[in-house]
Amino acid sequence: MLGKCFRIVGVNILTGDAARAALKRTFADNPVPESVLQRSAALFGERLSPQQAVDRILADVRERGDAALRHWTQLIDGVDIDVVQLPAHLIESARVEPDLHEAILVAIARVRAFHEKQPAGGWIEHTEGGALGQLVRPLERLGVYVPGGLAPLVSSLIHTAVPAVVAGVREIVVATPPGQGGQVHPAILVAAREIGVEAVYRVGGAQAIAALAYGTESIAAVDKIAGPGNQFVVLAKRAVYGSVGIESLPGPTETLVLADDGADARFVAADLLAQAEHNGAEPVLVTDSRELLIEVERELARQLENLPEPNRSWARDSVMTRFKIVLAGDLDEAFELANLYAPEHLCLLLQDAWSYVGKVRRAGGIFVGEASMEALGDYAAGPSHVMPTGGTARFLSPVNVRDFQNIISLIGLNEVTLREVGPHAARLARAEGLEAHARAIEIRLQDGKAH
Amino acid sequence: MLGKCFRIVGVNILTGDAARAALKRTFADNPVPESVLQRSAALFGERLSPQQAVDRILADVRERGDAALRHWTQLIDGVDIDVVQLPAHLIESARVEPDLHEAILVAIARVRAFHEKQPAGGWIEHTEGGALGQLVRPLERLGVYVPGGLAPLVSSLIHTAVPAVVAGVREIVVATPPGQGGQVHPAILVAAREIGVEAVYRVGGAQAIAALAYGTESIAAVDKIAGPGNQFVVLAKRAVYGSVGIESLPGPTETLVLADDGADARFVAADLLAQAEHNGAEPVLVTDSRELLIEVERELARQLENLPEPNRSWARDSVMTRFKIVLAGDLDEAFELANLYAPEHLCLLLQDAWSYVGKVRRAGGIFVGEASMEALGDYAAGPSHVMPTGGTARFLSPVNVRDFQNIISLIGLNEVTLREVGPHAARLARAEGLEAHARAIEIRLQDGKAH
Repeated sequence: MLGKCFRIVGVNILTGDAARAALKRTFADNPVPESVLQRSAALFGERLSPQQAVDRILADVRERGDAALRHWTQLIDGVDIDVVQLPAHLIESARVEPDLHEAILVAIARVRAFHEKQPAGGWIEHTEGGALGQLVRPLERLGVYVPGGLAPLVSSLIHTAVPAVVAGVREIVVATPPGQGGQVHPAILVAAREIGVEAVYRVGGAQAIAALAYGTESIAAVDKIAGPGNQFVVLAKRAVYGSVGIESLPGPTETLVLADDGADARFVAADLLAQAEHNGAEPVLVTDSRELLIEVERELARQLENLPEPNRSWARDSVMTRFKIVLAGDLDEAFELANLYAPEHLCLLLQDAWSYVGKVRRAGGIFVGEASMEALGDYAAGPSHVMPTGGTARFLSPVNVRDFQNIISLIGLNEVTLREVGPHAARLARAEGLEAHARAIEIRLQDGKAH
Repeated sequence: MLGKCFRIVGVNILTGDAARAALKRTFADNPVPESVLQRSAALFGERLSPQQAVDRILADVRERGDAALRHWTQLIDGVDIDVVQLPAHLIESARVEPDLHEAILVAIARVRAFHEKQPAGGWIEHTEGGALGQLVRPLERLGVYVPGGLAPLVSSLIHTAVPAVVAGVREIVVATPPGQGGQVHPAILVAAREIGVEAVYRVGGAQAIAALAYGTESIAAVDKIAGPGNQFVVLAKRAVYGSVGIESLPGPTETLVLADDGADARFVAADLLAQAEHNGAEPVLVTDSRELLIEVERELARQLENLPEPNRSWARDSVMTRFKIVLAGDLDEAFELANLYAPEHLCLLLQDAWSYVGKVRRAGGIFVGEASMEALGDYAAGPSHVMPTGGTARFLSPVNVRDFQNIISLIGLNEVTLREVGPHAARLARAEGLEAHARAIEIRLQDGKAH
């Protein structure tokens, strides 16, 4: 059958209820991999789940501050950091190739221009009964987490911090795991300088989240923490939520390509592979065309073969273990399945892609047509690439200006409203058993002097 | 000294650094009261912290569904609920006094009118390089938690669900702890009917949050849970965040009254007592006037004496244990302290109150002047009374339309942008080690046929 054609991919083609079951998010607690337990045994002297490990680190940083940061950075990153904050002159003097510098500037400018278009102001309405409104204020101090790993994720910094700059946040600080010798990659530092970041702290993981949330001797606590990270960072963000704000819980990335028989299989395969080379990524293809499936299979094999290492291995791993291929009966069913999945990225490679945008109810971002691929969006299309993963697009939005502003409700009513509405409010207060509330209203009504 | 005047209040007057220290939120883990541990021992057979108890209940509901709901409702609320969902005819037939019904309608209408003014639309901009924008979509299914307790908190339902209705959410369900015999107070049911609530589930506490987050046989999982609750509800909301959205973590309520020597001490005292009658509430008075302090003390004593029971005991408890009185050097210092505290409610009882609104950087709501007291805002001023507590106004907003909508980023670029921006994006991708990303861009550029 069709499935046999996928020699490289080796995954079944899903249809109907099997597709629905595969695309519905279940949020099951996955078993903790043995490797993680072994690693925790080496770090903590006992086998801990990631959550338990995170809780230990959070408690330690809360108690011991900088000493705990140095301890965990030494143990986990293998780096000694005497001074947690990177000296300012290293940010000032950081340099990258002119081409890369220009690309960073282009990305910053486009992300800024996009978010400057977001309507974000407050309002006040004055009537005979007084004034009501919503004031909008920027956050005062934001912490941006920039993941470490094999390469400098300069785009992660740009796509989190720039919307905050547009929102009016004046104090933005960055935490990122240090490389050998406590270095931070110059591309990160150039972007930080261009964005106007206040400070760069060379600390990563749960210990960085703890420091931003609770503060230490060298890191003042922030009001909110934003930015993606690994599992430990995400668990730590959830644990500190309440002491500090968080923008979302970004997990492994995912792309759903929705394509019809007019799509160019080379582009479909290229977009799936661009997704697949991310660690833990889930590429999904939904199509109503059997012919396209066959062509995509050929292209996937060809393009995968031509990728250099280590990217080929990364992409192959995602394709072999997490790739989902769905053959839908028609495009209506295809969009039903896409809405069920609520993908972080939804790529529409359809002949008349624009006409389908209205069918999308749940997604982080919609990438419309061949020239508007996700790889462009990851860097410089304009919208933040920090989009809701794991089905959280059901209730979360991509990072945007609102994430970095608060609303303050403004209630400036006068005696006209007091007389009109006050008695109703007092009645509700008594129905709720709150006598002092009713009296706080009635003392004004009796007084007759409220002004 | 001045402190001696406060015979009833018996609390010290704070100034300068002592005031700053008292008003700064520290988020310390409070020791678990012995009574809570004893109660958990009776329920679980061992002494558990509130978080441990919540985790047990969440896991049980996740595993056993409705059976667990019945079990915990029987144990905690002492009520047998055979059928979790309240039969629809009981919502249809619910009746309250005409006066109360009218008050409910007034509150709904004013909360609706206020939120209809909130700018909440998306935008799309078409340029030579294609289109970019932000689409706005309502959540699909919302769970509203309505606390139980001694009285029906009908206002809690109105102030959470109505902004969601305005946002366009079509499916709103309510969970609330059942009273004797599985009843739900008719005021709640009348409000639910008027708002257009889909279903009322008679289950409360952590078990209700688990059911809304994970789903059971009789409760379909929701996309987001909103509404205030007790400590167990709040801990449960944080624990399920990620599987489901939450709007905030509302804790005990608080009011900071900022008054000068022109304020009417009767109103100041009435507003402080209206706050104080809430369980666990924190009333705060900040003033630059010693004379006002003396008058407020006299009024507090008089008004407290005149309150009926049990409200007098509730209010006295808050005043005796959590009331903070601050004498500021001048109004500038008073506002500095108010911003430091980031109160849920900030009441400005100042001679020229409006002129000070611009000084407020952090608060849930500002109540401007004598006729605009918080007790009115709790019911029918217009803004939602669900406002950020415990200092979370540093990073959270009052419940508003945005809480019930998602943004979807729209990226519909064309070849013009692809050629202009694509090479920069590919450069950034390679700097991040993401070769397949660069190729997904370049395959379009080479093709020359991107359209």
